Amino acid sequence: MKAYTEWNREELLAEKAKVQADYEALKRRGMNLNIARGKPGTEQLDLVRPMMDVLRADSDYMSDGIDVRNYGNLEGVPACRRFFADLLGVKPENIFVGGNSSLQLMYDVIGKAYIYGRGPGKKPWMQEGKVRWLCPAPGYDRHFRISENFGMEMIPIPMKEDGPDMDLVEELVRDPSVKGMWCVAKYSNPDGIVYSEETVRRIASMETAAEDFLLMWDEAYCVHEFAVPFQPFPEILSLCAAYGHPDRVYAFASTSKITFPGAGVSCFACSEDNMAWMSKLLGVQIISFDKINQLRHALFLKDRETVLALMAKHAEILRPKFACVLDALEKEIAPLGIARWAKPVGGYFVSVNCMPGTAMETWRLCKEAGLTLTKAGATWPYGKDPEDSNIRIAPTLPPVEQLQSAMEIFCTSLKLAVLNKLTEA
Amino acid sequence: MKAYTEWNREELLAEKAKVQADYEALKRRGMNLNIARGKPGTEQLDLVRPMMDVLRADSDYMSDGIDVRNYGNLEGVPACRRFFADLLGVKPENIFVGGNSSLQLMYDVIGKAYIYGRGPGKKPWMQEGKVRWLCPAPGYDRHFRISENFGMEMIPIPMKEDGPDMDLVEELVRDPSVKGMWCVAKYSNPDGIVYSEETVRRIASMETAAEDFLLMWDEAYCVHEFAVPFQPFPEILSLCAAYGHPDRVYAFASTSKITFPGAGVSCFACSEDNMAWMSKLLGVQIISFDKINQLRHALFLKDRETVLALMAKHAEILRPKFACVLDALEKEIAPLGIARWAKPVGGYFVSVNCMPGTAMETWRLCKEAGLTLTKAGATWPYGKDPEDSNIRIAPTLPPVEQLQSAMEIFCTSLKLAVLNKLTEA
Repeated sequence: MKAYTEWNREELLAEKAKVQADYEALKRRGMNLNIARGKPGTEQLDLVRPMMDVLRADSDYMSDGIDVRNYGNLEGVPACRRFFADLLGVKPENIFVGGNSSLQLMYDVIGKAYIYGRGPGKKPWMQEGKVRWLCPAPGYDRHFRISENFGMEMIPIPMKEDGPDMDLVEELVRDPSVKGMWCVAKYSNPDGIVYSEETVRRIASMETAAEDFLLMWDEAYCVHEFAVPFQPFPEILSLCAAYGHPDRVYAFASTSKITFPGAGVSCFACSEDNMAWMSKLLGVQIISFDKINQLRHALFLKDRETVLALMAKHAEILRPKFACVLDALEKEIAPLGIARWAKPVGGYFVSVNCMPGTAMETWRLCKEAGLTLTKAGATWPYGKDPEDSNIRIAPTLPPVEQLQSAMEIFCTSLKLAVLNKLTEA
Repeated sequence: MKAYTEWNREELLAEKAKVQADYEALKRRGMNLNIARGKPGTEQLDLVRPMMDVLRADSDYMSDGIDVRNYGNLEGVPACRRFFADLLGVKPENIFVGGNSSLQLMYDVIGKAYIYGRGPGKKPWMQEGKVRWLCPAPGYDRHFRISENFGMEMIPIPMKEDGPDMDLVEELVRDPSVKGMWCVAKYSNPDGIVYSEETVRRIASMETAAEDFLLMWDEAYCVHEFAVPFQPFPEILSLCAAYGHPDRVYAFASTSKITFPGAGVSCFACSEDNMAWMSKLLGVQIISFDKINQLRHALFLKDRETVLALMAKHAEILRPKFACVLDALEKEIAPLGIARWAKPVGGYFVSVNCMPGTAMETWRLCKEAGLTLTKAGATWPYGKDPEDSNIRIAPTLPPVEQLQSAMEIFCTSLKLAVLNKLTEA
């Protein structure tokens, strides 16, 4: 089969009639599925049931001499600080353990910079004329929404196979109003790209005009391989420190996609000075996050090795789901030359770059046929994909059979959107 | 025995020598006790152990068709919204359930007003020249610290037996820069005062020059009687609405002193418009708070009636502790006329107003003898008690025997501080 672009108008119109009929038939099936978000499936959640049994007797709630049921220990239960330290390869004193949401911690880190500045005596960002922010794109919509809410001017940075375009980044950070950057260095959301060592080194070492430049380093998928064994990843705190920028970076992680999305634990890792600053400011708003849940997680997940054993079980559940999506794309879309996608080996998404100008229409057609995808454009700052091309597929929630039907709808919708575009007057 | 103020200098010097000797003897006992915060004791925490058993099977995590382990439901699990609605006497749709900290929600409500304003199109407070805030004092130091952190000018309002001095409040709110007020209407922290119906009505009905006036209504102790049966309390949302100010108030509650201080659930209650505004803004920073813990609480605590039965057990544990403190004051201090205190029937504190100019010295003497109290002054805005008089005693944490020793230290320290002052050259 040859690519649509090589078909003549007559062939395209005939194909369009056929695909339109396929689409109407699929619509009549009455699917009702939402795969807009990277939600784990029920099978994955059930893996963690034994965690709810680790705290039984009253004495179980004592840890390092602390009654975790009571007030105190703002930075988190020591056992859980040690756990995250092992996971990320840092020291426990560099770990602040939060509640169930790393997003909340990210919001707070930026919020404090905005209201109080990045450290004692530093200028609050709300007093800056303009704050610019580097956003590798496509990226995570919730990151972009935080930036947008603080009135930042977001600058999209093209993603390459080894991470963001570093030539461009190094040029832009010469502007002192460029105050920071979002990064998901391992299995980026949505592309599943792993930043190369060279890219990470350049990010850690680059000289920024803003001395209070803030690197927001989201390790959301740092142990989330599904198609390959665990891949070690660079430890960004010590890298930044080695290049003379110890206070540049906050790294974030959570168990949202290890235990429970709605009831896990989160952390940030940072330098000692950043820890002192954030603890002082966070201490105004909270006495401590939920230490019972922190201890429960520390006792169950234990260390990186134990987590990796659990993640191997997640991988078994996820592999057929990702295969289902990739097989459908390979079989239905690849021969037509109307989209490109990477084959991720970790993370939570398949990122499809459709023929420019067809993503929103594909999304709309899917929606009309009962399949809700992440809204086209959402993976770009301000929800505006300049090429109207990127669509994020989140295969993790539904069972494989349902995902197969979903992919029929997706592929047919994409074909129809492209055919509509190619046959426009 | 007559009051110290009626003793002559010779008598005072003799007494001082005696009390100084008592103090030195107490110091040699080597006490090491911190009762600075309103922490429940271990016995209270043990009451709640069965709550950790309500979620066993995978199916237990389904509630109103929602898998509480997964993402979603920003405003909280419906079951837990219903629980808090019953507790506070409002509708479930007026309840937003948060994480383990109502302080965090308070910080967020004020933080959003500061950054984004109190509603669509309202002016962010950070753009106001000056924001003034009414602080009934003595009050809760963590409330004041939030106000201070947002750069507010705090105005202390004297507390009377039926709540804050409303004549003064009504006068001050004619100033448009007065943007809000802290209130703990039932068993105020630290005095244990219950605002009268008339006071509450005046707060709900008063005309404020600031149309975006924010009433921060902390129901921290709304079911926390220890010496009397449950006392019904006014429902502030409908009262404000009845007087034409539906968006004036956010009410806060938590289970920090019902289940676990470090791992309970919190909520705010507000109007529909406030709910829409806050949900939109909180949705930027978090997908949802911990819904497993919300459901666990809803299943265990059920409704106000079930909570009251639990609080009766708390009361049995707390009664002898408060009696210990009040008896010691009555026996050792009352005859000397060197301090006043109310006898609370609920809440978490005994608030002692020492002879002016002696609170800080009393605190220091206690500290030196191994007893850490809430720092003198902490109950006033900026930590500055204009009379240097108020000390907050938190009797809930230690066992009664330890509390008895602590009160020996407190009473002796107070006497010594007063005698030092009265015998100054």
